[in-house]
Amino acid sequence: MMSANPSVVTPANLGRHAIVPLPSPFVFHAGGELQSGHLAVETWGRLSPARDNALLVFTGLSASAHAASTADDPTPGWWEDLIGPGKALDTDTYFIIVANSIGSCFGSSGPGDVDPATGKPFGYSWPELRVEDIARAGQIAVEHFGIDRLACAIGVSLGGMVVLAHAALFPGRARSLISISGAMVPSAFAIATRALQREMVGTALRTGEIELKLAFRLARKVGMLSYIGAALLENRFGHTASAKPAGSSGTHFEVESWLDHQAEKFAARFDPWSFWYISRAMDLFNLAAHRRDTVLHPGPAFGLDVGRALVVGVHEDQLFPIYQQSDIAVMLRAEQVRTDFVELSSPYGHDAFLVEDKLFTPLIQRFLAEAAAPPSVCAAP
Amino acid sequence: MMSANPSVVTPANLGRHAIVPLPSPFVFHAGGELQSGHLAVETWGRLSPARDNALLVFTGLSASAHAASTADDPTPGWWEDLIGPGKALDTDTYFIIVANSIGSCFGSSGPGDVDPATGKPFGYSWPELRVEDIARAGQIAVEHFGIDRLACAIGVSLGGMVVLAHAALFPGRARSLISISGAMVPSAFAIATRALQREMVGTALRTGEIELKLAFRLARKVGMLSYIGAALLENRFGHTASAKPAGSSGTHFEVESWLDHQAEKFAARFDPWSFWYISRAMDLFNLAAHRRDTVLHPGPAFGLDVGRALVVGVHEDQLFPIYQQSDIAVMLRAEQVRTDFVELSSPYGHDAFLVEDKLFTPLIQRFLAEAAAPPSVCAAP
Repeated sequence: MMSANPSVVTPANLGRHAIVPLPSPFVFHAGGELQSGHLAVETWGRLSPARDNALLVFTGLSASAHAASTADDPTPGWWEDLIGPGKALDTDTYFIIVANSIGSCFGSSGPGDVDPATGKPFGYSWPELRVEDIARAGQIAVEHFGIDRLACAIGVSLGGMVVLAHAALFPGRARSLISISGAMVPSAFAIATRALQREMVGTALRTGEIELKLAFRLARKVGMLSYIGAALLENRFGHTASAKPAGSSGTHFEVESWLDHQAEKFAARFDPWSFWYISRAMDLFNLAAHRRDTVLHPGPAFGLDVGRALVVGVHEDQLFPIYQQSDIAVMLRAEQVRTDFVELSSPYGHDAFLVEDKLFTPLIQRFLAEAAAPPSVCAAP
Repeated sequence: MMSANPSVVTPANLGRHAIVPLPSPFVFHAGGELQSGHLAVETWGRLSPARDNALLVFTGLSASAHAASTADDPTPGWWEDLIGPGKALDTDTYFIIVANSIGSCFGSSGPGDVDPATGKPFGYSWPELRVEDIARAGQIAVEHFGIDRLACAIGVSLGGMVVLAHAALFPGRARSLISISGAMVPSAFAIATRALQREMVGTALRTGEIELKLAFRLARKVGMLSYIGAALLENRFGHTASAKPAGSSGTHFEVESWLDHQAEKFAARFDPWSFWYISRAMDLFNLAAHRRDTVLHPGPAFGLDVGRALVVGVHEDQLFPIYQQSDIAVMLRAEQVRTDFVELSSPYGHDAFLVEDKLFTPLIQRFLAEAAAPPSVCAAP
């Protein structure tokens, strides 16, 4: 296995940072325009002369484009174990593109940007964001690199919604597709959880009634409880009292200290406006809005033009439950896409893709080798 | 079936309200004292001359003593379908006692009571509350009615913790025991969920920084999401947009309207101080603190002196998960208690006992007939 004896990291493997300008104006799916917008993008590996070896990764809600370490930024990325020479997304074979979602706060244009007219964040005056906008901005990055057809479009969590929107909006622009813990439409539980988090943050954003950072920390705690399986919490923390002094909740359990730490970390790095916008976009997503079939013109509902797909779900995921993963696979097969469906079990629940590289690496490796290998590379000796 | 053709409600069946004085001072399990405290209690049915037909019900966190309609208060109670002539807790056979937990806010002494010295709620100056205090206050109510031994002690949710504390603290004072969706010790997920709710409410209680009612409503929403199964939300609401105008969360789904309504209802009827105290008592409970066995004196760990027990859990319960119910049954059997364990399936999850009377009635009826029937009543022709 190459991963057991990793290749030397050559300059070509080292990632690069790029700023991709958006067309000005960028017209949003639900209306509204953005002038002079841009995307923060990172890439790894080398684009083949035939430009047929590109992978595009759509991220979760709160991730940056920094999925793995780069020459510009040697800190580990959020998918460090999956991207690199000999890894699942093999930088020796593929050119990998990860964009920070439009609306986010890690270098891409978003509602937390300062409005020069007021000197304050755009906030609610920013256009309404939809999952479709994230998909289209990603496609603009793809075209920025002169790529006509991706070897594979990959999405995790929110990205699992985006990758479906991308397939619906841009048929034929990816030879294959990987959906990990995604959804065609959010569940009521997911909506309820996110709406509650936005209510916490939104009240503070609107009225200042709640101290914003406190509210944002509380909202993140609600989120963490929906990401992580209860069994993992139990195994890791149980009823263990913390060594730390009692917090504001008046008790003193390890599980509380851990939640405090997670919330603190998140509030320090993420913008509440981006959170509000992207979270809302997730609730409003419904692939059914992209149906093309009619009574007069029956046929595949979405006209997705993808050769192969891999759909991965996690049994313990509360937020994007396993039945939604199976629904995606059923939909893809109805679209004539040859689809593998894999149900994993992980105590990390929705967050499994961030942690369980041992589970995901062989799955993705095998799938890419079969379904996405670039013709130009395969043709080479 | 009597329930199909209900008995005429005689005056003896009609419930009554009573105030039970607590010993003064009432000394709390974790220290601290309460002067001139009392419990609000409701009872149904008639105590037999031998005083051997009494059932004691320990409630969930937010319930009052009003488990069924009474002469004093004809509004339906929270277990209206389970208590009455011919029902699971049959008022023709049993004398049923439900106390409002000490620390609560429906007539029993609690931290929301006004301190005459300051004219404000006692709040954090009230003594620390433990599950054991709720158990002991319940036992005081039992003794108030001159009852030496209960036919059955029954606990739901929080009450499922209390009923175990009661058995550990007062061995031999109940012939049988029913635990529904209870726990010997809370799960890390349950702690995390409740600690988060207390953090929301507690910050407002302490500093006034957050508008208290808003914080309390948000906390209740977190709670509702832990009580109710995701499948129920999905079936009831799915991705359906609400007819109502967009709320403060900026979206407009039916599931949000429902959460809004639940939170509004709860904040209007429950006291945040009682919530804070009782919620914390739940997190701090650990039956293991009541072990009596030692290396020198091995034997049943808790010395529970109960003849029969019924343990009921709900497969979909996230807050008191099914493995905790099975743990209770294993513990009871190790205590030489003849124990039936029943696993129900209900989309209502933790709240099933409030809704699924069709499931619970036959279970409880059969168990009480076998395990709790008062000797004096059985002896009668």
